[in-house]
Amino acid sequence: MATVKLWTDAEAAADPRVAAVFNDIRTVRKSDFINNFWRALANQPDLLERTWTSVKTIMIAPGELDPLTKELIYIAVSTINSCSYCVHSHTAAARAKGLTDTQHGELLDIIGLASTTNSLANALQIPVDPEFSIG
Amino acid sequence: MATVKLWTDAEAAADPRVAAVFNDIRTVRKSDFINNFWRALANQPDLLERTWTSVKTIMIAPGELDPLTKELIYIAVSTINSCSYCVHSHTAAARAKGLTDTQHGELLDIIGLASTTNSLANALQIPVDPEFSIG
Amino acid sequence: MATVKLWTDAEAAADPRVAAVFNDIRTVRKSDFINNFWRALANQPDLLERTWTSVKTIMIAPGELDPLTKELIYIAVSTINSCSYCVHSHTAAARAKGLTDTQHGELLDIIGLASTTNSLANALQIPVDPEFSIG
Amino acid sequence: MATVKLWTDAEAAADPRVAAVFNDIRTVRKSDFINNFWRALANQPDLLERTWTSVKTIMIAPGELDPLTKELIYIAVSTINSCSYCVHSHTAAARAKGLTDTQHGELLDIIGLASTTNSLANALQIPVDPEFSIG
Amino acid sequence: MATVKLWTDAEAAADPRVAAVFNDIRTVRKSDFINNFWRALANQPDLLERTWTSVKTIMIAPGELDPLTKELIYIAVSTINSCSYCVHSHTAAARAKGLTDTQHGELLDIIGLASTTNSLANALQIPVDPEFSIG
Amino acid sequence: MATVKLWTDAEAAADPRVAAVFNDIRTVRKSDFINNFWRALANQPDLLERTWTSVKTIMIAPGELDPLTKELIYIAVSTINSCSYCVHSHTAAARAKGLTDTQHGELLDIIGLASTTNSLANALQIPVDPEFSIG
Repeated sequence: MATVKLWTDAEAAADPRVAAVFNDIRTVRKSDFINNFWRALANQPDLLERTWTSVKTIMIAPGELDPLTKELIYIAVSTINSCSYCVHSHTAAARAKGLTDTQHGELLDIIGLASTTNSLANALQIPVDPEFSIG
Repeated sequence: MATVKLWTDAEAAADPRVAAVFNDIRTVRKSDFINNFWRALANQPDLLERTWTSVKTIMIAPGELDPLTKELIYIAVSTINSCSYCVHSHTAAARAKGLTDTQHGELLDIIGLASTTNSLANALQIPVDPEFSIG
Repeated sequence: MATVKLWTDAEAAADPRVAAVFNDIRTVRKSDFINNFWRALANQPDLLERTWTSVKTIMIAPGELDPLTKELIYIAVSTINSCSYCVHSHTAAARAKGLTDTQHGELLDIIGLASTTNSLANALQIPVDPEFSIG
Repeated sequence: MATVKLWTDAEAAADPRVAAVFNDIRTVRKSDFINNFWRALANQPDLLERTWTSVKTIMIAPGELDPLTKELIYIAVSTINSCSYCVHSHTAAARAKGLTDTQHGELLDIIGLASTTNSLANALQIPVDPEFSIG
Repeated sequence: MATVKLWTDAEAAADPRVAAVFNDIRTVRKSDFINNFWRALANQPDLLERTWTSVKTIMIAPGELDPLTKELIYIAVSTINSCSYCVHSHTAAARAKGLTDTQHGELLDIIGLASTTNSLANALQIPVDPEFSIG
Repeated sequence: MATVKLWTDAEAAADPRVAAVFNDIRTVRKSDFINNFWRALANQPDLLERTWTSVKTIMIAPGELDPLTKELIYIAVSTINSCSYCVHSHTAAARAKGLTDTQHGELLDIIGLASTTNSLANALQIPVDPEFSIG
């Protein structure tokens, strides 16, 4: 259960700002499906608009990193932040962008290894080598 | 300052197990440089051997994900886990593997956006859409 | 499902120490409702007593920060710690203390922005400016 | 040491986009001081512009939450995310906005208490009471 | 719901590598029960094999720390990482190894206290005393 | 550098509440050394008194868990919370209570393994087995 109301399609259609964002999501994604994340943000139209703009700018607009790589990074961050919702939604997004089982296994391996070495480095308080410095 | 001793080259050379790992790191990486992470793990030869084996298996052996993508995922995990040492060492590793400033900017953007949406999803306790389910 | 038993009212009434805390919670909050957090802590009467005393001292006794501000800080901490239970209970508490939708939106905005800039600062390992130093 | 170059005033002045943001920061804050966070973001002008816009929108524009309350929430998030830089910069910002020693003590108390109860709730996996549900 | 398929006994029996690990788990644990963690890892036989080997080496092989102490440390890490699954499975494992209610209460107390003092130290950015240094 | 003043012995001696706590720390620990954590908390006498009382109750008073086991749990929590100060102070405390290099290695191994399996379980969103339920 959420801590806020999840907006139905009818409620969204009745609010011009929310309707505009939901329509844009549907157009950009070429799908009628609006997932719960946006239905929850609809309670705060400013936040809804800014978040969707950020997603379009960062995740959808073309860049040097390909769309699948972006999703792998997103899953890694969401896993360490223990965001159940985000792990689910971005694993589904990665699959839709072609994630193979082998790639998923490699992603899990890297997340697991980094988690271990992060803990070891923090437990040992290892000083940064000057060779890693900039300038 | 570390919570354990950082082994010098002379100390490493005098312990056969540590020497074997240090030599293998130098051979695999084609570099004489041994960073502090391994000098700290040298206090526990079992852990040193297992960690280096994992790094070779996961990060160095060829797979479907290319070496630079692996480093981006590693940096993302290390950033969220607040591991200063690991952020430094893997950002340097990514640069050595060709990370461009544009790619670094895109990585920062994704880490930043995911951090925000993770927080929003956790603050709103958004229920997972059944569409994201497996099977 | 919890990892410990949740005490019923009948079980709590039969243990003098647990009964005393539950009664005090009801008196202080002017409500018969005892939420699951306290029913779980009842397994450890020492911990139950100390935790309730801390809550009374820190969250209920008057101070310079008003009760709603205290709840906003509590929600922020609970969100970043990914404590689903605590986000739920303290968002409900904030609403009971007058949280408006606009304030909730501003809280979400700050939590989201801070999450992003925290990630950026950690990914970039930005050195602290001497101007921020004390003394 | 940072993982990226920190831009000097001379370097910033030579790049029109960076110069524009630095000038706006100085104007809005009525101070010549540009802290390292912005000098690091200058490597990525897009990210620099978007981050400064977010800070102005969320932290500086008037809202229902007063400026000091916003800083307290920011400190709370930054503390739990272990962002040393952000804790320093936002504690200094809170002091500049009038934070008293008593308020600082109350903030510390709430962060500490929430951290404990978050851990307890997560260790006990306490189920959310239906009373905390929306709708 | 998981982000991957959970393997049934029939599916596991049909894959030699998965079958071998499941059989070894049953033999080592002297129990027919295979918990969902292993059924999820079965999608990646390499990861399954390596993870089970690590568990046997670290948690099951005799060492200086006794089996119950190892579980207490595991619960502490899992609690702070907000891993609901791991808190459940390792609290059950600790009970099977003799965890008493008093010991559980002491564990909760230490996790709670450490969470508070961690937050305080991070909020105050307390410098490490030279007395805690090695060498 | 801290975000608050670290109290000198002279300053502490001039404040009766701070002096009383510092004296009690010295008596209980049978040592003149007051580490920076307490010198920072001295700015908030209430918090100082309550924190020291908690430490005495939880870490120093005898219980079912022995003093070294308590420190191992404390180090595990502090490592995952990325509290540099706390990792340093409690690793030193564990050594003072007899921590051997072998035990330290086992602790590191468990923290590392748990970090990995926590990440895997969170990335795979593995549902809790009903067998782990209470009651």
